[in-house]
Amino acid sequence: MFDETFDVLVVGSGYAGLSAAIEARRAGRSVLVIEKMKLPGGNSALSGGLFAVANAPLQAADGIEDSPALMAEDMFKAGHGLNHPDLVRTVAEGSLEAFLWCRDDLGVVFADGLHHGGGHSVPRVYSPANCSGSVILQALLVKCRELGIPIRLQTAMKGFIQDAGGAVVGAEVIADYIFPREGSGSVRRIGAARGVVLATGGYCQDVAFRKVHAPALGAALETTNHPGATAEGLVSALRIGATPVHLSWFQMGPWTSRDEEGWGVSTMFSVLVGLRHGVMIDASTGRRFVNELADRLSRSQEMVAAGRDPMLIVGGVAAQQYPNLAQCLKRGAVKRYGTLEEMARDQAIDAAALAETLEHYNRSLDEGVDEEFGRPLGTQERYRIEPPYHLVRLRPKLHYCNGGIQIDSGARVLDLERHRPIPGLHAAGEVTGGVHGACRLGGVAIPECIVFGRIAGRNAAGL
Amino acid sequence: MFDETFDVLVVGSGYAGLSAAIEARRAGRSVLVIEKMKLPGGNSALSGGLFAVANAPLQAADGIEDSPALMAEDMFKAGHGLNHPDLVRTVAEGSLEAFLWCRDDLGVVFADGLHHGGGHSVPRVYSPANCSGSVILQALLVKCRELGIPIRLQTAMKGFIQDAGGAVVGAEVIADYIFPREGSGSVRRIGAARGVVLATGGYCQDVAFRKVHAPALGAALETTNHPGATAEGLVSALRIGATPVHLSWFQMGPWTSRDEEGWGVSTMFSVLVGLRHGVMIDASTGRRFVNELADRLSRSQEMVAAGRDPMLIVGGVAAQQYPNLAQCLKRGAVKRYGTLEEMARDQAIDAAALAETLEHYNRSLDEGVDEEFGRPLGTQERYRIEPPYHLVRLRPKLHYCNGGIQIDSGARVLDLERHRPIPGLHAAGEVTGGVHGACRLGGVAIPECIVFGRIAGRNAAGL
Repeated sequence: MFDETFDVLVVGSGYAGLSAAIEARRAGRSVLVIEKMKLPGGNSALSGGLFAVANAPLQAADGIEDSPALMAEDMFKAGHGLNHPDLVRTVAEGSLEAFLWCRDDLGVVFADGLHHGGGHSVPRVYSPANCSGSVILQALLVKCRELGIPIRLQTAMKGFIQDAGGAVVGAEVIADYIFPREGSGSVRRIGAARGVVLATGGYCQDVAFRKVHAPALGAALETTNHPGATAEGLVSALRIGATPVHLSWFQMGPWTSRDEEGWGVSTMFSVLVGLRHGVMIDASTGRRFVNELADRLSRSQEMVAAGRDPMLIVGGVAAQQYPNLAQCLKRGAVKRYGTLEEMARDQAIDAAALAETLEHYNRSLDEGVDEEFGRPLGTQERYRIEPPYHLVRLRPKLHYCNGGIQIDSGARVLDLERHRPIPGLHAAGEVTGGVHGACRLGGVAIPECIVFGRIAGRNAAGL
Repeated sequence: MFDETFDVLVVGSGYAGLSAAIEARRAGRSVLVIEKMKLPGGNSALSGGLFAVANAPLQAADGIEDSPALMAEDMFKAGHGLNHPDLVRTVAEGSLEAFLWCRDDLGVVFADGLHHGGGHSVPRVYSPANCSGSVILQALLVKCRELGIPIRLQTAMKGFIQDAGGAVVGAEVIADYIFPREGSGSVRRIGAARGVVLATGGYCQDVAFRKVHAPALGAALETTNHPGATAEGLVSALRIGATPVHLSWFQMGPWTSRDEEGWGVSTMFSVLVGLRHGVMIDASTGRRFVNELADRLSRSQEMVAAGRDPMLIVGGVAAQQYPNLAQCLKRGAVKRYGTLEEMARDQAIDAAALAETLEHYNRSLDEGVDEEFGRPLGTQERYRIEPPYHLVRLRPKLHYCNGGIQIDSGARVLDLERHRPIPGLHAAGEVTGGVHGACRLGGVAIPECIVFGRIAGRNAAGL
């Protein structure tokens, strides 16, 4: 009946899939990971690596009070209460263990400071020392190699195989698949004696699919995602009765540059330095228009309001803190100006209004209060915006799919009709929905992937 | 293979289902309508009967300029652009013909005046003379009887029957079904030689299903819907690969009373008279807080904001215009007060603030401009708010499911994977998604049901 059989089949090789594979293997099971692309990792290979942790070790050092309950509250607030409470709690409560697993077990090196991510009540977000999530992915890949877990590339999910009772017992896959070529490769049947973990990510690159759920998100819209972020994995699950959740809720990243394609090199500059130490202005007025540390949904909605021309301005001392600044300048994604007049002239901003904006902001730093937009200023060191100025011309890009298939807190995929687990099927990461509701907070995707990936792996292993 | 066979099987006996049945029968086909409840109509039997028409006959008389394009624009604006453009256009462009069909072909008597519905740019909404949509339902039922279309009650949809190629060729139904008793009745197989029309409505009463999509909408939440507004029909379609759209977008009605259950007798008083001639105030401040003619989403969001205690106040002359006022007063859903002081004391409203609010509003009527909230005041006659005062204590209730399964402008149900029609399956009405996006405008549901119901019936008949 099958061409080959493993205990656990993991579909997708990003943070969630590899975490699941590692746990299943450590439980003594045979595991196969399949990945449709030529390289492993999907969006995890491009990720900025932000990692939100409730009760982070560095919080104690800084005297920051935090708790899983506070992190969950932040997630509900951003998510407009659409979030599934049990999933939110599972991520918030599991974030510390997931972080320690990455740091101590996998050996990922994180920077020695916490980021105050937009929409978070307190600084609780770690960032890898090199400002890229690729080091987390690499650590997961190394661990898979150590454990002897095969990762079969260019092998695409075609559809689940179910037994007479509806339990998932394997998958039809396409071996030697060349994305996105329909008809490439050949079909093989892979058995999964204990179950399948679906971890195929989101569908930001699937124009036809995303237009069904949000017609405005047409082909012209830029995205930060890798080309393989398409909906087939999700659709395979829906085909066998998985429950769709929040498919129309997409996230636009409020920190991407219009001067480079996709994710780009400047995004982590804007996230880690620009939005922390700088201001976002509307170049058509020279004024601020939003709390730069609001959640991503609020910010991106303000940024695309009619007539807005959003730019980010940060001072020289702060800019130097970003390790990859030289690359950003070289590519033109970050522009440097010696004087305010020069910057205003080059970007056609009203110089008087801009000067007033920066003076006012610098004064608010002294007072520790942002009276205009309520941005939190008091909790961490801030640098004044002083020459040389660094500027990013922003444009929100499609970044993340909040929705997906429904799981319970055991990463079990729930059936549409009975709201009960579909036997043999687990899922984790962006392919699932319910954790974030209307808006995902920055830094929560990775703990989500690691927490639910590990749960999925353990439960698929039958522990 | 089948216990009996018809050309067209219609599932559901509301506005959409009966419109489909009539068109299919008129095309010469044999038709069966099944309905799981003891009575036909579902929510259509409870509906207020509002009917939005672009280029309505009465608009010309009043010198109101309108067009399908303007109605479509209003729908997109309320829908936050999530609406499917082809479906919006189909409803807006078809609204006039659908109205004339109801009025001239079915003989429904509408009141001789247009309602300016919330979120509509101009007055374009008809209302049946008795302020109830039940007359539209009755007219449809009479027409079905004339045409000899059987409506089989207590017959529930169990699942679609497909041929080897995936085409829908019939349905398994449960005859002698007693809602909501699982296990009641007996299964029969009904063939549909030309196809099935799914018109099973929304899922506002399906607590388990709605909580998946919006966890805050738990069992405690009141709804205007009939008990049978559950998700089985929708789920049957998803089971065979229909595409889910906007399932997390629900509508709260901003005009229901907390002093009566469900839809109640006062709702059409509030819709037709209260919101047109009165003001909505926050009883905790005595002040207005919203444009009373904003779309339903905007209004209901403002009404449930923390600490708000929404009430509607309208003057005596206006209140008398509502034909069923006596019933509202008798049930206590509308309260009458001779003086402002009496009303303020009884409802614990700050009398001075309330007096100021009413004076200010009455003055704005003279000026024809609502400077505070931008409510349109100029287009139709308005009555001042003067004694005796009539007051409704409002509480938004769950009213409508904006989401459902995806159809194209031919009412063909589209497949999840290929975005192509599932052969033999059409759908219309609240079971479908995409027409309304984030917010349905008042009065658009009935034209939607009639327009797409008739299209579904004609296309299922194979014309």
